[in-house]
Amino acid sequence: MEIDDLTRRTGEWLRGEGPSSKVVISSRIRLARNFEAYPFLSRADETARREMYRALTDRITETDLGQDCLVVNIDEVEPLDRQLMVERHLISKQHADGEGCRGVVVSADETRALMIHEEDHLRIQCLRSGLQLETLWQEVDRIDDLLEERVEYAYDEKFGYLTACPTNVGTGIRVSVMLHLPGLKMTNEVERLLRAARDMRLAVRGLFGEGTDALGDFFQISNQATLGKSEAEIIDEFGNEVIPKLVEYELNAREMLANERTYQLDDRIWRAYGTLCHARTIGTDETLFLLSHLRLGVQMNRFKLVDLATINQLFLLTQRAHLQKINGGPMDGEKRSIARAELLRQRLGSSN
Amino acid sequence: MEIDDLTRRTGEWLRGEGPSSKVVISSRIRLARNFEAYPFLSRADETARREMYRALTDRITETDLGQDCLVVNIDEVEPLDRQLMVERHLISKQHADGEGCRGVVVSADETRALMIHEEDHLRIQCLRSGLQLETLWQEVDRIDDLLEERVEYAYDEKFGYLTACPTNVGTGIRVSVMLHLPGLKMTNEVERLLRAARDMRLAVRGLFGEGTDALGDFFQISNQATLGKSEAEIIDEFGNEVIPKLVEYELNAREMLANERTYQLDDRIWRAYGTLCHARTIGTDETLFLLSHLRLGVQMNRFKLVDLATINQLFLLTQRAHLQKINGGPMDGEKRSIARAELLRQRLGSSN
Repeated sequence: MEIDDLTRRTGEWLRGEGPSSKVVISSRIRLARNFEAYPFLSRADETARREMYRALTDRITETDLGQDCLVVNIDEVEPLDRQLMVERHLISKQHADGEGCRGVVVSADETRALMIHEEDHLRIQCLRSGLQLETLWQEVDRIDDLLEERVEYAYDEKFGYLTACPTNVGTGIRVSVMLHLPGLKMTNEVERLLRAARDMRLAVRGLFGEGTDALGDFFQISNQATLGKSEAEIIDEFGNEVIPKLVEYELNAREMLANERTYQLDDRIWRAYGTLCHARTIGTDETLFLLSHLRLGVQMNRFKLVDLATINQLFLLTQRAHLQKINGGPMDGEKRSIARAELLRQRLGSSN
Repeated sequence: MEIDDLTRRTGEWLRGEGPSSKVVISSRIRLARNFEAYPFLSRADETARREMYRALTDRITETDLGQDCLVVNIDEVEPLDRQLMVERHLISKQHADGEGCRGVVVSADETRALMIHEEDHLRIQCLRSGLQLETLWQEVDRIDDLLEERVEYAYDEKFGYLTACPTNVGTGIRVSVMLHLPGLKMTNEVERLLRAARDMRLAVRGLFGEGTDALGDFFQISNQATLGKSEAEIIDEFGNEVIPKLVEYELNAREMLANERTYQLDDRIWRAYGTLCHARTIGTDETLFLLSHLRLGVQMNRFKLVDLATINQLFLLTQRAHLQKINGGPMDGEKRSIARAELLRQRLGSSN
């Protein structure tokens, strides 16, 4: 599998299916792991990094994780390809922007992405559409076991798994869920809820992870504490209490809008369609915002001119790197905005 | 002719034809006149007003000006009908909002509107599409002569025609032209030009006259000084120097946009169309703003899905009073916005 194959499909996480998919775009679990035999990355020179990288990719690809996988040495690929992988949520922005020998091993369906030498030696990530934390935990746990048979982890009897950043020490787990909350946004309740989430020591971020603002109506919620609770407790609390509550609030807001603010709701949806189908130049932020409203219309059965698959695909294809890849190479901001508008008109089936 | 007949047609001034009609929407000339035999309005009681009103309407309608005309006693009609006449530029906002016996005599094609008891006893107004100041002056002058044969004007050898407000003393003439300047607006030159116009003692107002802001891209430019210059000088300077210069600037701006900022220009035009065809609720200001961009597209031959006549008609029909009249009666703001969006979708021929 090659990087260029990625642009020809949508990752599993953007299928728009799975439990609670009206509100939950995707779920992700990642584990941070370091290896006993190697120095932490902050203390490793480039020679050591290379050696570790080679050893780790060998250990991974000799298991069934290596089947049809994509192995990318991030230091050796074009900036556009790095950005592409960020947009597909396969690597973090930090990993793309980092330095030195580092990489990622991605499964063919993009539900697995093992980052090598991000902040820790290894980050095991699994990602699926909808709310599927139990499934993800089984997958992550299996990978964790598979690798632990081959390499010894840095582990402390008292603290648990040792990590580069103290916030990850303990289970090393981070559970995060991408929510689509246009209803709460329209009813002005989203800020209050996000404040409550922060009070519960949950982190709230934008569509593209750490360091990005919440863009449009998409919010990534994740746990911050990894110490003092077991993985099962964290996942249970998150998947069976916190997220279902937020999903319920969002669905209530949507119902209220449909019953009491019908025109305003339809206005948002149809204006979004009108603009997406007719703009001649459009930026990423506005596109995301408008596609969000279109998605809401489809999910609420109020808009039937476009299907969900097309919208989900457009979320990715209109991103900077994707747009440049499918248009054959680097473009400046102005050209990208024009190409983005053209792509949207084409795919949304407007004859104008 | 009845007031209700008005909503079924577009006044001559919105035909979108006539000289320089790419930029000049309409031209208007009005004369302020008072009568020797009557007290100024500020000193007339209601009985005197009534008597004067009857005498004046009689004098007007006994000439050919009475043919097929509409005579409206504004004090006796519904607020909606008053607002309707303001929107059609037949009476001023002050006249609609005034008190006591007052009226207007309108010709069938709406090129003539004689206001009785606005600020002065009589205001003779002629209004036509495009830049047609000479024609308008001939019309206004003929009406002036026709009435002067029947009633003696308040006139002073030294000052000229006497008026209620000193700014009108002298010729009592006001010449105004409604300009559509979307090009200069987009190139950020409009403010500078309007400042220059003000330095030349020209007044700049919005689409609906005195007290209204310049809305969207429409600007009403008129002379302020009426003393010390003859009517011919004022009209000549205005129609052959000031306005042609502004028209030229606007056309240059449009040409520049078409050559150098093609995408931004088309983006404006097509987004306007997309929104107008898909909104479910929309206010007057936004409608005006978007119709202005559509008009620009048609005038520049870059947009062919809608014809100019439809756009011009929509400028009027989407106004508050027109909208309520064609929908059968008073509606609150929310209902109006919904009805306005429905009307736009219908008339702009979108199937959605």
